[in-house]
Amino acid sequence: MDGFPFSCPIQVRWRDLDAFAHVNNATFATYLEIARTAVWHEHFDGREAMDISFFVKNLAIDYKRPVALYDKVQVWLRVGKIRGASFTFEYVVEANGEIAAEAMTRLASVNNTTGRPIRMSPGMRAMLEKLQTD
Amino acid sequence: MDGFPFSCPIQVRWRDLDAFAHVNNATFATYLEIARTAVWHEHFDGREAMDISFFVKNLAIDYKRPVALYDKVQVWLRVGKIRGASFTFEYVVEANGEIAAEAMTRLASVNNTTGRPIRMSPGMRAMLEKLQTD
Amino acid sequence: MDGFPFSCPIQVRWRDLDAFAHVNNATFATYLEIARTAVWHEHFDGREAMDISFFVKNLAIDYKRPVALYDKVQVWLRVGKIRGASFTFEYVVEANGEIAAEAMTRLASVNNTTGRPIRMSPGMRAMLEKLQTD
Amino acid sequence: MDGFPFSCPIQVRWRDLDAFAHVNNATFATYLEIARTAVWHEHFDGREAMDISFFVKNLAIDYKRPVALYDKVQVWLRVGKIRGASFTFEYVVEANGEIAAEAMTRLASVNNTTGRPIRMSPGMRAMLEKLQTD
Repeated sequence: MDGFPFSCPIQVRWRDLDAFAHVNNATFATYLEIARTAVWHEHFDGREAMDISFFVKNLAIDYKRPVALYDKVQVWLRVGKIRGASFTFEYVVEANGEIAAEAMTRLASVNNTTGRPIRMSPGMRAMLEKLQTD
Repeated sequence: MDGFPFSCPIQVRWRDLDAFAHVNNATFATYLEIARTAVWHEHFDGREAMDISFFVKNLAIDYKRPVALYDKVQVWLRVGKIRGASFTFEYVVEANGEIAAEAMTRLASVNNTTGRPIRMSPGMRAMLEKLQTD
Repeated sequence: MDGFPFSCPIQVRWRDLDAFAHVNNATFATYLEIARTAVWHEHFDGREAMDISFFVKNLAIDYKRPVALYDKVQVWLRVGKIRGASFTFEYVVEANGEIAAEAMTRLASVNNTTGRPIRMSPGMRAMLEKLQTD
Repeated sequence: MDGFPFSCPIQVRWRDLDAFAHVNNATFATYLEIARTAVWHEHFDGREAMDISFFVKNLAIDYKRPVALYDKVQVWLRVGKIRGASFTFEYVVEANGEIAAEAMTRLASVNNTTGRPIRMSPGMRAMLEKLQTD
């Protein structure tokens, strides 16, 4: 997917389907989260994660086509806008080579002890910038 | 909640929490769906549901504060814009009397047999208009 | 339900259904957990919960009939066998007044700091015994 | 895993964890279902699936150790007892090479039209027997 430096395959589960036999709309939000967890694990520094957490502040999903159980699903991800204490991930959910959804989440960095917003470190910014593709 | 003619209590589950011990971001989308199912059951005509379904085409959630296991949660709902073959629901998720999230879904009416978009009947429009509060 | 001193209503969700349009088998385990959380909140002492946790060691569910979206569901619960560092909950899942499932979980008490099994206090035993029905 | 002819890797999700930061007990039932869906897709005949469904009648899980987010999880599966209109799957859930759970489900074959139990065909029995390991 052009312009998306990271991708993550999704194992679609029978439990992801609802009574329409399609992947439920809320489950798409979980698919985005799987990609976030994967990019985190692969690209970010474990030590930083001990002091700050990232909370989802905004979520937007545009659904393009239904996803079925045996579809081959991939979530593509890039970093969008970076601000002092938050940034956005932009996503494409692909199913069998077609776009099934486009999505965005804004995540805010929060101090684990105080629960207050906290500026991201220069190291975190640098890591995020590597996943930007203006 | 002023301007929201329908509301639905949510039974928060231990399974709704994630490892931060807060209700997971994707679960809010399920809370919206619970309210949709409830308003459907209470206000809409069962016969119409046999011919058409409503698919979520757009979802947007703005998270305002975390929700914990024993919070008293209520989803407030109203109909926003009505178009020929789609309309929006607007929501407030309330926890212990505070706004935990604001959200919107656009639903498109789809013919069950063909899977194609289909204009809503005048009866359906009239029912939706009762849940509008301009 | 005769012999079950505690019960908890369940709010069935559209998301609980799978592509057969019935409540998914795994979701029954979540329904049991909802009842456990409710009995905990109502009957047990908050202070004790800070030192020990209870982990599910065994789960068994016998499914008797499918549960549909608008069924009125109730989980009935009692304490079965109490041992030094574990005990069982026994459940009936009722849907529209019929038995939909019978189930059992064995929970082991674990020290929060060490993660090791730990004997339950006399206070905890006494509370559990109140939920036994020989 | 000796004696288990089929296995299926599991993509552990952040959403699978509960507030203890371990995979939730009910989610193990979903992991078993993922393995069932995979074995079905790989070994069984699509045509038969149009006439009959298999419903979970009994589920039993013995939990041996907690599973964490980045554990490498695999579900091993074999067919146990085969009867006229039902059979059992036996499972081992492995995490990082250790046994995390042992489990069993009994599935009953049901006629899709009538919803009644129905004897499995000789073809289905033969396919199941290939997954037995006495």
